[in-house]
Amino acid sequence: MKWVTAVKNNKCFIGLVRDEKIINVSELAENSEMEFPSTLLEAITLGDEFLEKVGSLIHSNLVPNHTYELNKIQLKAPIPRPGKNVFCIGKNYRDHAIEMGSEADIPEDIMVFSKAPTSVIGHDEGIPSHSSITNQLDYEGELAIIMGKTGTSIKKEEAMDYVFGFTIINDITARDLQQKHKQFLLGKSLNGTCPMGPWIVHHSDVSNPNNLSIVTKVNGEIRQNGNTSDLIFDIPTMITELSKGMTLEAGDIIATGTPAGVGKGMKPPVFLKPGDSIEISIEGIGTLRNEIVE
Amino acid sequence: MKWVTAVKNNKCFIGLVRDEKIINVSELAENSEMEFPSTLLEAITLGDEFLEKVGSLIHSNLVPNHTYELNKIQLKAPIPRPGKNVFCIGKNYRDHAIEMGSEADIPEDIMVFSKAPTSVIGHDEGIPSHSSITNQLDYEGELAIIMGKTGTSIKKEEAMDYVFGFTIINDITARDLQQKHKQFLLGKSLNGTCPMGPWIVHHSDVSNPNNLSIVTKVNGEIRQNGNTSDLIFDIPTMITELSKGMTLEAGDIIATGTPAGVGKGMKPPVFLKPGDSIEISIEGIGTLRNEIVE
Repeated sequence: MKWVTAVKNNKCFIGLVRDEKIINVSELAENSEMEFPSTLLEAITLGDEFLEKVGSLIHSNLVPNHTYELNKIQLKAPIPRPGKNVFCIGKNYRDHAIEMGSEADIPEDIMVFSKAPTSVIGHDEGIPSHSSITNQLDYEGELAIIMGKTGTSIKKEEAMDYVFGFTIINDITARDLQQKHKQFLLGKSLNGTCPMGPWIVHHSDVSNPNNLSIVTKVNGEIRQNGNTSDLIFDIPTMITELSKGMTLEAGDIIATGTPAGVGKGMKPPVFLKPGDSIEISIEGIGTLRNEIVE
Repeated sequence: MKWVTAVKNNKCFIGLVRDEKIINVSELAENSEMEFPSTLLEAITLGDEFLEKVGSLIHSNLVPNHTYELNKIQLKAPIPRPGKNVFCIGKNYRDHAIEMGSEADIPEDIMVFSKAPTSVIGHDEGIPSHSSITNQLDYEGELAIIMGKTGTSIKKEEAMDYVFGFTIINDITARDLQQKHKQFLLGKSLNGTCPMGPWIVHHSDVSNPNNLSIVTKVNGEIRQNGNTSDLIFDIPTMITELSKGMTLEAGDIIATGTPAGVGKGMKPPVFLKPGDSIEISIEGIGTLRNEIVE
C-alpha cells in the first residue's frame, strides 16, 4: 500500500496509489458517511483501525468514480505538517562521514538533529534557492521511517513493530549555515528544504528496509549510489536509541542519513543552483523529484 | 496579564492569573456561548482577537463564580504540547560558554538546537531522574520567548512586535548524552526535561525583557545569578537570526540560553539527584519550581 496526501479542488485528501492511479479514500469515506481521519498523520495514529476502514472502503463499487490518473494529481508531502521536528540521523554511512571530513568523523554514537516542520514540501514542489542566505545548498537522499505506534525505551527486537512505513526525504542542507552555527538546526531548516514523498509505502510492502539501493541524481547525473545495508546504525538500532527515555510517537519521522556523494564532498565542491533537478530513487519505495527555484 | 493552562475536573482550561487567583476564562466563554480557542496555543495564534474576547469576558459579573485560589489549582505547562520542537539558543551567555569549556567556546554565530515537544512538563511536575540512561542530569534556567505572530526574515527593529510574551524554561540536560551524541537533541529531549511555566506573561507587562535578573536555586542554594542584559545575542537578534529563511510561527517557543552556574561548571561537577528541587526566578515573570523524582 502506498499512501499519499494529495489535492483536489484545493482540498487535501488521503489517497491510495495503485497502478499509476490514485483512489481518493477520503471521498469514499465521506460518501459512505464513515467517520474518517482528516489527515494521513491522524490516520497513522489510529493504527489498525485505519487500515480496517480502508479495507472496507476499497471494495466498494464506487471506487472507479473516485479514482484518478496519478500524473494528473498534485501531491503534497505525505505528512505536510508533522507534529514535531523531523528527526535526522547524522553521518550514518561511513563513506559520507569521511567525505565530510575524515575517518575521525565516523560516529561512535548515534548523532541526532532535527528539521523544523515548516521545512517540509512535497514531490515536485520547488525548493527555494535561498540565495540571499546561502550559496552552499546541497542535497542528501535519505530513506525515512514513519513511526506507526507510540513507545518509549523500545527494544531492538520489537522495533520494527513500531514502524508504519517508509518514504524518501531530501535533507537539503545549507552547508555554510550548518558549519557556521555548529548545531545543525538552522542549516537544515530553511523553508522548503525537507522535500518528502512521493508517498509512504506501508511496511508490509518492504521486505527488508535494511537492504535497499538508494540513488540520487542531479540533472540526470548519478551522484549518490548507496544501499541501506551500509547504515552504521540500522533501523532497529535508531528506534531503540532515539526512544531511550524519549517517547517516539506514531507519525514521527526519522530521516536515516545519507550515503556518500553529496555536493560538498566533490572536488571541488559543487552546490545546487536554480534550475537544478534532484531525483532520489529508493528500491521498492519510489522516486522523489524536486527542482531548485529562484 | 499572566496566562496559564490549568486543570479542573481532569479538563484543561485557559486561565488568567490575578492576585494569587485564577480566572477560568474557558468556562466563562462556555457560559456565554462564545466561540473560544480550546488551548492557549490556539489562543495565541488568534492574536488580538483572543485578547478582545477575553476583555469582554472578564468584565462579566459571573467572574467570581469562575475564580479559584491559585495554590489550589494544578498547573500544566502554559503550552503543554508545542506544535514543533522548542528552539533553544546554546551558549548565549559568555560566562556559561567559558564554564562549559573555555573562551574559545564563546560563539561568534548563534547556535540553535531543539528539545522534542514530548519533553515538556509544567510547574511543580516531577522531572524523571532517568537514572538508567544518564548520571549527569543538569539544570539550565532560561527566559523563553513565546512568538505571537508568524513571520519570515523578520527585521530586527520589528522583532518585538512578533512576541506574545515570556515564560521560564528549565532546559534540563543529560550532559553525558549531550557530549556523547555531539548534536544536542538527544541529551536535551528526555521525557520531562523541559519544565515550562508557571505562566506566560504578556509582553505588555514586561517593560524590558533584555534586562531581567534570572536566579536558579537548587535546594534553596543560589547556583545561577544572571541577567538577560548579558545575552550575547539579544531577543531581537535571536528572532531575526532564526527567521532568516525559516518561518517562525505564532506559538513557537525560543529558550534564550542560560547564564553561568550550571552543575557541570562546578569544581568538581555536581549533578541532580532524586529529591533535588530546582527553582528558577525571573524578574517580572515568576518562579518555576520542579523536583527530580526517581
